[in-house]
Amino acid sequence: MTDHDSGSVVELPRQVAVVNVGLKLFGDAVRSQGAAVVDVDWRIPAGGDPALVAALVETYGAFSARIDRANAEVCRRLDSAAPVLVGLATACDVVPGMGERTLLHPGPPVAWEDVCDPLRRSARAAAMAEGWAATPEAAEALIASGDVDLQPANEHATVGPMATVLGPSAPVFVVENPQGGGRQGNRAFAGINQGPGAAPWFGVETPDAVARVVLLREAVRPVLESAVAATIEAGGPIDVFSVAAQGLQMGDDAHMRTQACTNLLVRALLPGLVAADGDRGVEVARFLATNHLLFLNIVMAAAKATSDWASMVPGSTIATGMARNGTTFGVKVAGLDRWFTAPAPDVGRALFHPGYGPADAAPDIGDSAVLETLGLGGAAAAASPAVATFLGGKMAGAVAATRAMESICAGRSTRFRIPYLDFSGSPVGIDLRRVVTLEITPGITTGILDATQGRGQVGAGVATAPLAAFQAALLGVAESARP
Amino acid sequence: MTDHDSGSVVELPRQVAVVNVGLKLFGDAVRSQGAAVVDVDWRIPAGGDPALVAALVETYGAFSARIDRANAEVCRRLDSAAPVLVGLATACDVVPGMGERTLLHPGPPVAWEDVCDPLRRSARAAAMAEGWAATPEAAEALIASGDVDLQPANEHATVGPMATVLGPSAPVFVVENPQGGGRQGNRAFAGINQGPGAAPWFGVETPDAVARVVLLREAVRPVLESAVAATIEAGGPIDVFSVAAQGLQMGDDAHMRTQACTNLLVRALLPGLVAADGDRGVEVARFLATNHLLFLNIVMAAAKATSDWASMVPGSTIATGMARNGTTFGVKVAGLDRWFTAPAPDVGRALFHPGYGPADAAPDIGDSAVLETLGLGGAAAAASPAVATFLGGKMAGAVAATRAMESICAGRSTRFRIPYLDFSGSPVGIDLRRVVTLEITPGITTGILDATQGRGQVGAGVATAPLAAFQAALLGVAESARP
Repeated sequence: MTDHDSGSVVELPRQVAVVNVGLKLFGDAVRSQGAAVVDVDWRIPAGGDPALVAALVETYGAFSARIDRANAEVCRRLDSAAPVLVGLATACDVVPGMGERTLLHPGPPVAWEDVCDPLRRSARAAAMAEGWAATPEAAEALIASGDVDLQPANEHATVGPMATVLGPSAPVFVVENPQGGGRQGNRAFAGINQGPGAAPWFGVETPDAVARVVLLREAVRPVLESAVAATIEAGGPIDVFSVAAQGLQMGDDAHMRTQACTNLLVRALLPGLVAADGDRGVEVARFLATNHLLFLNIVMAAAKATSDWASMVPGSTIATGMARNGTTFGVKVAGLDRWFTAPAPDVGRALFHPGYGPADAAPDIGDSAVLETLGLGGAAAAASPAVATFLGGKMAGAVAATRAMESICAGRSTRFRIPYLDFSGSPVGIDLRRVVTLEITPGITTGILDATQGRGQVGAGVATAPLAAFQAALLGVAESARP
Repeated sequence: MTDHDSGSVVELPRQVAVVNVGLKLFGDAVRSQGAAVVDVDWRIPAGGDPALVAALVETYGAFSARIDRANAEVCRRLDSAAPVLVGLATACDVVPGMGERTLLHPGPPVAWEDVCDPLRRSARAAAMAEGWAATPEAAEALIASGDVDLQPANEHATVGPMATVLGPSAPVFVVENPQGGGRQGNRAFAGINQGPGAAPWFGVETPDAVARVVLLREAVRPVLESAVAATIEAGGPIDVFSVAAQGLQMGDDAHMRTQACTNLLVRALLPGLVAADGDRGVEVARFLATNHLLFLNIVMAAAKATSDWASMVPGSTIATGMARNGTTFGVKVAGLDRWFTAPAPDVGRALFHPGYGPADAAPDIGDSAVLETLGLGGAAAAASPAVATFLGGKMAGAVAATRAMESICAGRSTRFRIPYLDFSGSPVGIDLRRVVTLEITPGITTGILDATQGRGQVGAGVATAPLAAFQAALLGVAESARP
């Protein structure tokens, strides 16, 4: 390539050069003849699939004005909703459609026979904690008999991280989005995070794991409930995303790592925790002192309330929901009440606990990917030194993850700021059109569960969402947009 | 300047150019004739002062082998000491040389008539809290009469941030450096951080401020004491610098900002706080919930124990102590039991609370600068988005502060890692020779107090230590090194 800028004192030597657009083979051929070659990684969008190309042409073309307006409103909602933690309640008292025999699971709908091993174990543990069965075998028989109503939590304004399963007696955090329709806005729910070690959300169904669920219900819930109430009474509503925004200044991505957010919350709750009645206070305090993911479920509920509100906007190409059940990965698009699914991916960029490796890893699971839709988790990777350890050990890897999300997002958060990127906002609003054009899918920071033996968490890493689900979603959008 | 690298395809045009070393005026003269000039900012070291140049020649020359050995040992101690928080006690029971009428103040020794306004107020508040006087006027008369033994805390293994003054009944954290000589190692002490708002450490002497000191003694101390004891019993010694190292991954510089460290500590103490007896538990919890500098005093005591240990090494040019009393700024050097002082500087790079400005600012004050001697505070600025807000609002400003400290330090911390700098260690071991040669002095992250009216904290920023104190210290080292 020849370049001559007459205003510069530097003159580059003239020589033959080639810019190669597209197939790298062509460039290699020219390069082998000794000429300089610049490769530009251009490909026919969507692999040339006619239906996908048509959907791109329509959504970027004829429908684009309408879509761009809808997308702007979706992004506005994703960026401006300010859900508040209002308290705790019993699931069956507040979760819409929760029956006496309902179990809520993460991810898109899935038949019991297709449920993966860690989620099966978690469901059986939930059944045991409900008192419906005394052993895993009895719980298995009960659920397999169809006598339990296995429902996707997402369809009931509820979310659960990893393999969390909630029964009707489970305590849930109640989060309210005042801007969402209705007298009190729209609400979303999540259980109390089950903590480290032997716990069903990690696919463990031992007696200890079942006891953990009972501990949450019998001991942790009353203490937290009264502490949250006291904190709200003293200081007003607890703005969940405000805590998350502070956490991003303190090394959290607010998904894989919620240490800073949890600590901020615990310190705010401290007077209420100390004042709480109940002789199990110290036991609860010990649980809270070792659970640095307490905030995860709360911020997930806030994200769910936000995404449910954003989902009410019709005619958009923005993904407002992502969830995995360990078998399938599902995407929801604003305005369409459907899951677009693909097989759940492996967690690719991973670090394993000592003694474990990829062969032990269950596929990606949990509702927590809703965080990635509004600027947290993988989108905020560059905020988190802890996440960087999973991406090559330097901040550059985490920055690359955030940059990849930027390339497929419609906007930037005005509240979730990344210090490492000079406090610029994290990417918000995953646009299916960009995902399908660039073939870049969201990276989701997450834990990894034992695939088959119920030994709990075996590692953590960053999962890459499957492209096929986004391609299906774009086809669905284009179809629904046609007159 | 002409450059021709035959291995490159880029050939720069040959032209007349000049490299100008030293006085910029010479370069300007050449530049005015149209030639290219590169300025190199070289100056005669130490401004050409003969005594300083001689001291540099000696300490970098004849004495250097001896000094480098000593410096390596000082740096090893600064980097490897692992002081642990062992509990709380009453000052007069544990602080060496603390008498019934002793008040400990920050910084080098200072006569009462030279004490600055905020420190006067804090000393009077301490006298009132001790019950020695009922009003500021009575306290003033008592102290001025010489009936109170006003001592530099530093000379009693004790440190206090800002204008902290400790009386004999004050509760102190006890921190132990197991590696320091003696059966239990060497110990250091610091009061409980007095918290935000109306408090004597900010130069406030109102009844509320005096009541704060009493609250610490009567209510906070027993709760913290039993919580710390319970936490140690359950989990072993509390390694103070391990908490600080975690805090640096979470946006703390562990000086101006100790939010993350405080929260980590509070969450660790939680079971002990909940279990603590006493009907004032909720009041104490409220105090802890709003005091994000609780950890500051503890990490200062750990730094003091470390620097006292490092100070035992003779013949070094490493600064192991820096402290300010609001009138003078003092440096101590390992091996020399002397303060080298200069007038306390203003806090130059500052942000003020609304309604306040530089005219309201007292000079730099407090013992907290000991943190900068071992890789925290200004040395770790690049770890802290909060510190960056005082240095131009982007991380680049905070990085520049850390880089400046690197230029005058002998080594890097192996434990205090800065994510933004790819987890490299923060600079440790301020070498007087480098300071005097480069005329770069440590930047110290700090608060700013009202200069005259006792209204408390009016801002925060980064103070630049006065060069004269380091020059005096280098002269002192050279003198003591001569046969």
